[in-house]
Amino acid sequence: MLIGSGNVSTHLFQAFSKVPDVEVVQVFSRTFSNDFPSNIQISDFTQISEADVYIICVSDNAIASVSDQLPFENRLVVHTSGSTNFDVLNAKNKRGVFYPLQTFSKHKEVDFNEIPICLETEKETDYEILEKLAKTISKSVNKIDGNQRKALHVSAVFVCNFVNHLYHIGSEICKENNIPFHILQPLIEETAEKIKTLSPEEAQTGPALRKDSKTIEKHIDFLTDSTQKEIYKILTNSIQNVEKL
Amino acid sequence: MLIGSGNVSTHLFQAFSKVPDVEVVQVFSRTFSNDFPSNIQISDFTQISEADVYIICVSDNAIASVSDQLPFENRLVVHTSGSTNFDVLNAKNKRGVFYPLQTFSKHKEVDFNEIPICLETEKETDYEILEKLAKTISKSVNKIDGNQRKALHVSAVFVCNFVNHLYHIGSEICKENNIPFHILQPLIEETAEKIKTLSPEEAQTGPALRKDSKTIEKHIDFLTDSTQKEIYKILTNSIQNVEKL
Ligand SMILES: NC(=O)c1ccc[n+]([C@@H]2O[C@H](COP(=O)([O-])OP(=O)(O)OC[C@H]3O[C@@H](n4cnc5c(N)ncnc54)[C@H](OP(=O)(O)O)[C@@H]3O)[C@@H](O)[C@H]2O)c1
Ligand SMILES: NC(=O)c1ccc[n+]([C@@H]2O[C@H](COP(=O)([O-])OP(=O)(O)OC[C@H]3O[C@@H](n4cnc5c(N)ncnc54)[C@H](OP(=O)(O)O)[C@@H]3O)[C@@H](O)[C@H]2O)c1
Repeated sequence: MLIGSGNVSTHLFQAFSKVPDVEVVQVFSRTFSNDFPSNIQISDFTQISEADVYIICVSDNAIASVSDQLPFENRLVVHTSGSTNFDVLNAKNKRGVFYPLQTFSKHKEVDFNEIPICLETEKETDYEILEKLAKTISKSVNKIDGNQRKALHVSAVFVCNFVNHLYHIGSEICKENNIPFHILQPLIEETAEKIKTLSPEEAQTGPALRKDSKTIEKHIDFLTDSTQKEIYKILTNSIQNVEKL
Repeated sequence: MLIGSGNVSTHLFQAFSKVPDVEVVQVFSRTFSNDFPSNIQISDFTQISEADVYIICVSDNAIASVSDQLPFENRLVVHTSGSTNFDVLNAKNKRGVFYPLQTFSKHKEVDFNEIPICLETEKETDYEILEKLAKTISKSVNKIDGNQRKALHVSAVFVCNFVNHLYHIGSEICKENNIPFHILQPLIEETAEKIKTLSPEEAQTGPALRKDSKTIEKHIDFLTDSTQKEIYKILTNSIQNVEKL
């Protein structure tokens, strides 16, 4: 049973649909969505059927209120949020977390099998069923407690959200200078690829690492945007401080 | 003819070795290197043979002095540096730039065919020979003038060097919390992959974009390192300022 019809719910539905042993009994959606078969969509909590696991995939700040509205007790209810504790879920049910560590957009396909799923349950005895379910769609299933999940989420902000923003800055600089941004794509991919075999410390290159102060100054002069200048300086300093350790 | 025996020279040599029509006549190396056949290595500029193009792949600050030491005139001499003008090369020769836009480490293989090569020549008439040479190893050959190359190099610092440093910060946070860093690898790859089909603005996700100030505050509290806190704040602000435009 999936609750919510956004990015995560859509991708989970697609992944579970391919598993013969798992049936998505219903999808709860406030508004009708074309991403799910109409015969399993409900929009009223009183129509909710019995299921082994209820996965709440709604916006973080709606998780608590949705869990309060569930008209049953003592069933296994989990959310999919990286930054939320299981205890926001109503205690009338058995609680847990089913956090897929990936960046989902509705119309961008992903291979769920490669996506690490981070699991936590309030009671040890509920862990097994969640693990069995997760293993049907992913080869990377991990027991991660609330504090570790928080750390992972913070790390994900750095390696995904902030990284994407640096891509944005790169694309702005290209645009200003009439350079097609896709010229940078092989470099971007190789940078992500490299740390499969090297640690980020081993993979580090560039003027900051080389302490090439002439190039660093030229770059800061070249930038026209004051925020970009500031980001350039703070990241350059931060790289140089790693190497001093 | 390759001058220098570092990362770039090694990868160029490997790429040209696969092309029947191109012969690397000699490799100049101050110190003997096992990465090149011994019969073509020289370490004395007086031994230098005739070649159609001389590619100087030495550290940025050595390019000028190496070009001064070349015991001939009026031949095509280029360097491989993103942040250096062709005019640091001695004017006794025909000058240009052969800049492969990629991050090279000696023992990490790359597919040269995918690497954008950015070319510039002082004289228009020399462009064709450089272009012909570049096209034997790469399908992405681009005419890029000095100012554009500078812009590309600055962009590359953001999307490669700085991005790798954010991977480093992610790995530090994981280490502190006993989480294996490789759990983040699929997210890192998908983040790089996504912008093949979406613009960085379309691909942006996360608490900064959602203006989820509760999560942002929790994250800043969670971080123990003051530089990491500062980077978190400035990048969060910068993301929020993009969206206001
Ligand atoms: N996207 C990611 O990359 C990602 C990755 C891992 C985990 N997560 C987590 O997964 C969860 C869902 O994220 P998402 O990206 O799928 O979000 P989303 O695409 O924005 O979808 C949110 C869903 O929540 C529903 N919803 C919001 N408020 C509701 C309420 N008060 N009552 C009932 N339904 C409500 C929305 O319904 P309407 O369409 O009717 O508004 C929509 O179906 C979040 O906890 C998020 O932290 C997201
Ligand atoms: N690495 C990259 O990712 C990359 C990407 C694109 C462009 N580039 C550019 O390519 C060029 C070479 O970079 P690289 O990464 O290959 O450097 P590298 O691996 O550090 O190698 C530098 C080479 O320069 C030689 N050298 C240094 N000073 C010299 C001098 N005074 N006289 C003669 N030879 C000297 C070194 O010889 P010894 O071994 O004897 O010291 C070495 O062979 C630079 O202009 C760089 O900006 C690099």
